[in-house]
Amino acid sequence: MPYFDAASAAPLHPLARQALLAALDEGWADPARLHREGRRARLLLDAARETAAEAVGCRPDELVFTPSGTHALHTAVAGALAGRRRVGRHLVVSAVEHSAVLHAAAHHEAAGGTVAEVPVDRTGRVVAEEFAELLRTGGPTAPSEGRGTAGGPASGGGATALACLQSANHEVGTVQPVGDVAAACREAGVPLLVDAAQSLPWGQVGGEWSMLAASAHKWGGPSGVGLLAVRKGVRFAPQGPGDERESGRSPGFENLPAIVAAAASLRAVQAEAAAEAERLRPLVDRVRRVVPEAVPDVEVVGDPLRRLPHLVTFSCLYADGEALLHALDAVGFSVSSGSSCTSSTLTPSHVLRAMGVLSEGNVRLSLPRGTTAREVDAFLDALPGVVRSVRGHLAPHEAGPERAHGEADSLTVDALGKRCPIPVIELAKVIDRVPVGGVVTVLSDDEAAGLDIPAWCHMRDQEYLGAEGTAYRVRRR
Amino acid sequence: MPYFDAASAAPLHPLARQALLAALDEGWADPARLHREGRRARLLLDAARETAAEAVGCRPDELVFTPSGTHALHTAVAGALAGRRRVGRHLVVSAVEHSAVLHAAAHHEAAGGTVAEVPVDRTGRVVAEEFAELLRTGGPTAPSEGRGTAGGPASGGGATALACLQSANHEVGTVQPVGDVAAACREAGVPLLVDAAQSLPWGQVGGEWSMLAASAHKWGGPSGVGLLAVRKGVRFAPQGPGDERESGRSPGFENLPAIVAAAASLRAVQAEAAAEAERLRPLVDRVRRVVPEAVPDVEVVGDPLRRLPHLVTFSCLYADGEALLHALDAVGFSVSSGSSCTSSTLTPSHVLRAMGVLSEGNVRLSLPRGTTAREVDAFLDALPGVVRSVRGHLAPHEAGPERAHGEADSLTVDALGKRCPIPVIELAKVIDRVPVGGVVTVLSDDEAAGLDIPAWCHMRDQEYLGAEGTAYRVRRR
Repeated sequence: MPYFDAASAAPLHPLARQALLAALDEGWADPARLHREGRRARLLLDAARETAAEAVGCRPDELVFTPSGTHALHTAVAGALAGRRRVGRHLVVSAVEHSAVLHAAAHHEAAGGTVAEVPVDRTGRVVAEEFAELLRTGGPTAPSEGRGTAGGPASGGGATALACLQSANHEVGTVQPVGDVAAACREAGVPLLVDAAQSLPWGQVGGEWSMLAASAHKWGGPSGVGLLAVRKGVRFAPQGPGDERESGRSPGFENLPAIVAAAASLRAVQAEAAAEAERLRPLVDRVRRVVPEAVPDVEVVGDPLRRLPHLVTFSCLYADGEALLHALDAVGFSVSSGSSCTSSTLTPSHVLRAMGVLSEGNVRLSLPRGTTAREVDAFLDALPGVVRSVRGHLAPHEAGPERAHGEADSLTVDALGKRCPIPVIELAKVIDRVPVGGVVTVLSDDEAAGLDIPAWCHMRDQEYLGAEGTAYRVRRR
Repeated sequence: MPYFDAASAAPLHPLARQALLAALDEGWADPARLHREGRRARLLLDAARETAAEAVGCRPDELVFTPSGTHALHTAVAGALAGRRRVGRHLVVSAVEHSAVLHAAAHHEAAGGTVAEVPVDRTGRVVAEEFAELLRTGGPTAPSEGRGTAGGPASGGGATALACLQSANHEVGTVQPVGDVAAACREAGVPLLVDAAQSLPWGQVGGEWSMLAASAHKWGGPSGVGLLAVRKGVRFAPQGPGDERESGRSPGFENLPAIVAAAASLRAVQAEAAAEAERLRPLVDRVRRVVPEAVPDVEVVGDPLRRLPHLVTFSCLYADGEALLHALDAVGFSVSSGSSCTSSTLTPSHVLRAMGVLSEGNVRLSLPRGTTAREVDAFLDALPGVVRSVRGHLAPHEAGPERAHGEADSLTVDALGKRCPIPVIELAKVIDRVPVGGVVTVLSDDEAAGLDIPAWCHMRDQEYLGAEGTAYRVRRR
């Protein structure tokens, strides 16, 4: 039963399990205590910190363990913004960051700070120059006063206090130009926080980043462990009630046996990374190549080359994402999706939205270590039938003449109250009923329509004229 | 090698270990995902929540898991204060709360709120009536306008937004009158947060509390798990960047296998609690009785009756706490201490300070489940020799005439630069050199002297005249 959702969580690495069991016996005590059990726990904690620091590429005293990657990111954003409050309250993030960063940014904005989102191209990648342009210098530490206004409004927030960029995207696998952005940040005197959750198992993040966060359950470590590295010299003021643990940067009793296991696992997966990447990359290439051949109306998303070795994402037109997930699950494949119908908020993935790509029928495969070609082939064999069956369930909802009305060269389809992918299906069914140059208007109150109708136009080479309220207009080419 | 520091952390309960191993296999996936691994994880999480809620005595939807007891307390204080911001910004806490509560209170004060500390008596217990008097009603929900000023200054902070009381003290074992305080809070319309970290393994906390926090590694569960119960109807506004996990009250990927183990362990230790308490209580009674007989100049602290069954604390005059800890460790006993020399800040325990009892030579024994009479007897056999040897190491520092000077009925001892317990030792050595009614002045810049010199006077029935700066004055009786 292949599990293809390693980017959400991976089963415990055998070495992590071994380390966890040993540390449960040896490292359950309070490392702050002076007795032998406490000292033993302290030694384990110190050793784990050294191992993790080596894997990250920082000094042990620059690294603290947190209860999760989310905690690491929240702590990093809050601490760096507070540490540079006098410089400014402007925060720059890429539009495709993990929700933990975007939530921290929203929190900063609600507290009176300002936030700029760096857009991405259709592959999900930021352009380093565009990122650099949004960095506002100025304020007390500004190298030159004039430059700060180049990338955004000069008023509000002052200079950029912090910039955030993921090393690689968690939904589409696109690798970001961290080195170039780090160089630009350094030149602008802005610290850069790198969310390395997806890439750290594959190796150190290069470039002169200031802070780095990651999460153990993404690399076969146990849940309950994140890490945060803050380079010496970065102004950092931890927020919230403090305590003495983890250099005052992460309160609460250390999750010690899990920390030991996390460090052991990180070392192990990084050691295996090159070989494993070489094995998985062709499997992912195969998915990227075969899926659009075997399944009609599919868009494979994410950068085709600059990407994680184990992750591939595609979207299927006219298919319901949740139905697809369940149908794949029923035949034994566990995948993830960024479709709106699979999220509790019924909004499509902000990553797909920022990329401007189709969100309906979205499927993400992230292969755990050890995934075999046989498993991937089994998936490729099963997929066409699964998509066909899911699409078939939607077919009975024919967009009959009763739902489409209007003049010969202008037609309106009422899809109000219908959820993704119905609005796009209805659009596709009537487009041929207007002459070339004619316009179809789709009425839809589903939030995904704003993403999927333009994406459909892009895929189908139709002209998207824009939306007014719930009315989306498309001109037939 | 007996380990007597269960109040810091306990080894994993066998059932917790068993549950953890099973959940590592079954519950590593993301419970928010729709695939079978995710659904299996969700089932485990739901079951753990039900088990924990039953043990706590609340509804499952009132309980969330947090990364630690500290996180639970920080979240509870911040969320309740924010939820009742319109009512007032006054916070009432007992003086002997866990540092996590006191840190949260300090954070609230730094942000402009007000805090009142309810004092404790010499046994470490708050008096419910005194607690009630410090609750300020008034503001929009005040039943009567006049009452609010009874217990404190009317200005600043407005009405009491939140009150905090531990169920039992973590350093001296004294059980607090939670039921009475909860009733007073209810009458005043103030929510009560109970820190149940020490007592929850011994059973449910009675009384009509509003919120309750606890920590799994105190009950033989793994580290990395705390819990927070917030009763329906309590106004609660989670602070910081949120996310969708744990009802928006505890961000980050759930520490699932550990949560499963924590819940299993809590149920198990509560089931064993009555029998285990019956076994441990006589052992603790024995320590309380024998230590003062076997070791001269010892003060046993904490309430003699209303206390946890497994915890006992005493302080040894003229002994260095850290030396005592190491000497006990060397002969195989792991204990904890609230002496200033054992803390990284070199300040004595705030609990002992609030009680006004001796902090030097402080030793806390907290017996883990399964502790035998034989182990306790071995400790009682070893203790007198250990204390003698530790005191002996200090003896060479004779307070000769060169360090004591002054008139016949008034003598000054210079202990500047000397750390606890030296100032008290020097005082004890010269007190007989002044006549009854004569005054000894001890010069000391050690923070512990402010606690230990008065405590020594109390134990020795000498008259403490007070301090001016670094000069402590004692009249011989």
